[in-house]
Amino acid sequence: MSRSTVKESHVDVLIIGAGPSGVMGANALIQAGVNVCIVDKRPEGVIAGQADGLQPRTLEIMHSYDPTMTETLLRKGATLRKTTFYTPSATGGIEKTFTSSISISPNARWNFGLIYRQGAIEGLFRKAMAEKGLRVRHDTVPTAMELVQNSSDLRDPKAYVTKASALLRPTTSGGAQVTLKNLVSGEVEIVHAKFVLGSDGAHSWVRKTLGIDVEGDTTDAIWGVLDFVPDTDYPDFRMHSFAQSHDGTIMFIPREGDLLRLYIQQKADSDIIDPTTGRADKDRTSPEKILAQAQKILKPYRMEIKDGEVDWWTVYVIGQRVATKYSINERAFIAGDACHTHSPKAGQGMNAGMGDTHNLAWKMVYVLRGWSPLSILETCEFNGDRYQYESERRKFAQDLIEFDKWWSKLVSEKRSTGSNLEGVTPEQFIGAFKSVGGFVSGIGIRYAPSTLVNASHQASASNLIVGERVLPHVFIRVASAEPVHVHDMLPADTRFKILVFAGDLSDGDDRTRLQTLGEELKKAENFLGRYGRGDVGKWEVFDVVCFTSAKKDTINLFHIPEFFRPHWSKALLDDEDMQGQSAGGGYAKYGIDPHAGAIVVVRPDGYVGSVAPFDGVAFLNSYFAGFLL
Amino acid sequence: MSRSTVKESHVDVLIIGAGPSGVMGANALIQAGVNVCIVDKRPEGVIAGQADGLQPRTLEIMHSYDPTMTETLLRKGATLRKTTFYTPSATGGIEKTFTSSISISPNARWNFGLIYRQGAIEGLFRKAMAEKGLRVRHDTVPTAMELVQNSSDLRDPKAYVTKASALLRPTTSGGAQVTLKNLVSGEVEIVHAKFVLGSDGAHSWVRKTLGIDVEGDTTDAIWGVLDFVPDTDYPDFRMHSFAQSHDGTIMFIPREGDLLRLYIQQKADSDIIDPTTGRADKDRTSPEKILAQAQKILKPYRMEIKDGEVDWWTVYVIGQRVATKYSINERAFIAGDACHTHSPKAGQGMNAGMGDTHNLAWKMVYVLRGWSPLSILETCEFNGDRYQYESERRKFAQDLIEFDKWWSKLVSEKRSTGSNLEGVTPEQFIGAFKSVGGFVSGIGIRYAPSTLVNASHQASASNLIVGERVLPHVFIRVASAEPVHVHDMLPADTRFKILVFAGDLSDGDDRTRLQTLGEELKKAENFLGRYGRGDVGKWEVFDVVCFTSAKKDTINLFHIPEFFRPHWSKALLDDEDMQGQSAGGGYAKYGIDPHAGAIVVVRPDGYVGSVAPFDGVAFLNSYFAGFLL
Repeated sequence: MSRSTVKESHVDVLIIGAGPSGVMGANALIQAGVNVCIVDKRPEGVIAGQADGLQPRTLEIMHSYDPTMTETLLRKGATLRKTTFYTPSATGGIEKTFTSSISISPNARWNFGLIYRQGAIEGLFRKAMAEKGLRVRHDTVPTAMELVQNSSDLRDPKAYVTKASALLRPTTSGGAQVTLKNLVSGEVEIVHAKFVLGSDGAHSWVRKTLGIDVEGDTTDAIWGVLDFVPDTDYPDFRMHSFAQSHDGTIMFIPREGDLLRLYIQQKADSDIIDPTTGRADKDRTSPEKILAQAQKILKPYRMEIKDGEVDWWTVYVIGQRVATKYSINERAFIAGDACHTHSPKAGQGMNAGMGDTHNLAWKMVYVLRGWSPLSILETCEFNGDRYQYESERRKFAQDLIEFDKWWSKLVSEKRSTGSNLEGVTPEQFIGAFKSVGGFVSGIGIRYAPSTLVNASHQASASNLIVGERVLPHVFIRVASAEPVHVHDMLPADTRFKILVFAGDLSDGDDRTRLQTLGEELKKAENFLGRYGRGDVGKWEVFDVVCFTSAKKDTINLFHIPEFFRPHWSKALLDDEDMQGQSAGGGYAKYGIDPHAGAIVVVRPDGYVGSVAPFDGVAFLNSYFAGFLL
Repeated sequence: MSRSTVKESHVDVLIIGAGPSGVMGANALIQAGVNVCIVDKRPEGVIAGQADGLQPRTLEIMHSYDPTMTETLLRKGATLRKTTFYTPSATGGIEKTFTSSISISPNARWNFGLIYRQGAIEGLFRKAMAEKGLRVRHDTVPTAMELVQNSSDLRDPKAYVTKASALLRPTTSGGAQVTLKNLVSGEVEIVHAKFVLGSDGAHSWVRKTLGIDVEGDTTDAIWGVLDFVPDTDYPDFRMHSFAQSHDGTIMFIPREGDLLRLYIQQKADSDIIDPTTGRADKDRTSPEKILAQAQKILKPYRMEIKDGEVDWWTVYVIGQRVATKYSINERAFIAGDACHTHSPKAGQGMNAGMGDTHNLAWKMVYVLRGWSPLSILETCEFNGDRYQYESERRKFAQDLIEFDKWWSKLVSEKRSTGSNLEGVTPEQFIGAFKSVGGFVSGIGIRYAPSTLVNASHQASASNLIVGERVLPHVFIRVASAEPVHVHDMLPADTRFKILVFAGDLSDGDDRTRLQTLGEELKKAENFLGRYGRGDVGKWEVFDVVCFTSAKKDTINLFHIPEFFRPHWSKALLDDEDMQGQSAGGGYAKYGIDPHAGAIVVVRPDGYVGSVAPFDGVAFLNSYFAGFLL
């Protein structure tokens, strides 16, 4: 076959791997109108097992793209509300030691973990993507990839920088190795892309092809995983539960329907590891053997598999590793398990990876639209604070692994009970459990200062922490008196949200001051005019939402200067709802003075980018000048 | 065309009219596996205008069939949270007089009205029906119908009692009158049905064909209705608002998106009524004329139509009428506007009609399945308390019209203000507004005692009023510590729910007592065994849910006798959730003693059928013997 007969195509972004990280990224990009190709080596169809849990922040992120996703998840998933711990009893076997709320993050919009099978979570994204005409190309793997080395191309966001990516359907082409110089057989397609994203798992082909190393260890912890409908007298089989005996530890994760997932620690002297690969080998064990280990740990409780049917199972060795870098030349990226792996006990699984591509996607969109320079995607550290994607996400992954090690140790340690005074006391454990909540839930992520994260004027909104996601709260819509969750005003629509906390608009002085701010913001030289791309109130880059501290019976929509209510839905107030059942106290919660007010910049991914006082327009001009064109 | 070439078909239920009442009934029946044919004279497609508002109880009912319906409605609809009143000012024009919460029913699960266009609401039902393979046959009208007169057939639920219903596509057949004796032309089909439901509107063909009269008056109130996107300085254009001037009254209903609906009272000397028909004639007026009237009433406020586009409009004379009966021989029924009409100010519109068919559908299912005698559908009053559908729904319609008259008068009456001390004071008005809340919202409906409604032992659960829908409350699932809304345990799945309030199961006495009750209920001669149709825990007719007053840290799933937890999801407890944010106090709210407990019977439509003490099994046997076979 000559090169000229090979199909060639051009896309903005080529995504390798349609797991949770891949479809999160693909959906974010296609919703923004980016031309995407996403491929996956797996065949199409329902997939059992794999990752299971969505953390509170991931629920918030999914909701910001499409509220129907969270509606479905909340209706169909199992939720983790309570964690129980069983430890060895004085009489042999295990006994319940204590209980903790799993409210790892009381300030999350949904303050619990939610369990739903990975295939169905991917399905939610696939459905949203399909509505925009994007489908995953299954049974498809890349066989070769080269990035251009020409530095002028690398600096041009419109240039196609993958010299070529050849895609092949392995099921029809067999195992013949196809390279760029050897396009001889099968259904091969060359895809030219402006950006490449490798979300192709722990054994990432993209990472290896890009020559990126991983740092860290394979632990000696081997875990078996069994998904099944249980027949048991273990009382907490529908809770998040840890059973620790002298024979090992088990973690219970109740799943959708009647399924239960057990993570079962395998004995250290297990021969499950293949010495040649260092990986766990499923052929060296079986569900029966794993169940037998579980039964031993759970004594005196009974644990059987109902009807003998195992829904899914696996066995693996935990690696706690991070890639040394997340990108090459800001044109090829890796995300998710390709970047970092950790143990199941941290409950991170797909969450960290979905956070990666959520963080990356809008920045790619800004570059592709010509709104931002490539530097918004820079990952090298030579340029002071300009290292956005990698710095924000790699630091998190490193923290995660440190946490994972500490937490895994704590979970496995003996606990002090009435009959056993050694080890960690329940109080210490609960304290530790609570202290990690923000971290585990994803809610506590705080991006460090950078071009995009400027906390110089944090004092203007002292509790809306710059670098963190916006604290949930309910306000009241001025025009309709409807309660509105602030997150619902912050959809992942690629716009920066300018939240103007306008003070008390029933007060003449505050109203005059807001009028003055509006006049200033109308000027073409200030950031809305300069970077906004669009007429006043219809900017492509910005969305302005106004929050007054006035009470619902003291003002109406027309008391708000027109500039701050381009649409009636954009004006909110800080008061209780009509029944006094929700809302109120938002200014206080956010640490904003009810008269002085504040201007809060929220990034397209829902994180606070900066905060400024009313006289901070010049400061904001310079903030946006740092990354907008 | 000879009779033999005419297509004939057989269905369980033939429904004429696919408006909100019709599709509510059709969906309820098809979900229960009943063979349904539903036809509508309207062409397929999106329909603007028509009815608009869903009351709190209707939201609860829709949720009981399919929670995705309420999810969609809450996401897309406009909600009414606040009602404002404008009255004539001393200086001419109108001024805001006072504000009231529209929380007409604080104890509703969703305590507000929700506005969404009728076509889209019907669409939610059509989607649910389509998933079961049932589609509305559009462009189709009945042309003739005769019921059999043979009393043995009438008494046999399996007999086809419509001698014939001929259906015709009017668009292809022209206006030729087709009768059963004259099947000569066009695409005619004879449908044989066991039951017929006429949900074909105020001018119901079914009602007329069955020879049922209507009682009541056409009022002298003429209303214009305009749907449009407003350009206005009336501050409350996104609220439920009444503007009353010397020139008439306007009611504001904000709609989905930016649409506003105005109900505009037309002048009494208007010539809109066609003297020959007594009906309002659209040709005698125009949107421009109606808008001009609105502008006059709203002075000094401005009201224009943005871009001049009217989404929908109509004009009509309000009839306040009720059909003299709702059925013929318990085989042919009418529902919705075919039974009753009232003014828009009562905010009932489609709600009352949807309540009719929700009430009717499960009873039809019970008869068709052979679970209940035809008497469950009886509407004549000779048989003492055996008049279920008509008595329950016709009384409601009559009450509604009385309310409508009183309320319409109150809304139109002058109000006492600072400058005008005559008339109703704001306090009186708010008092009246609150007092009617339960009625308007649909929440306050209480079915009178009958075979199905037996309040003999009300004292056992003094606040779960027999004949009313179950009071919303959140309990905690024992197995998982998840908060669960009691309504989510009461889906409209045609089963009677037996709610066993089991007392404090951390208490040995209470546990023993429950064990004893379980032994008793297992006996074949008691109601579960006798009428349940199925093995213990898998009855087709019943679903048992257990509620203990024990706290979450004092019991686990296995403390509950097995009989009362056929599935782990069926055991709930009465305590706060893990964060103390919801739930708790359910026994007290329901008026149930935390040790004595109670057995509460909930009908398939979500209404409390009866309440019994623990020693009331014999009483319940006799209750169910009244209508189950």
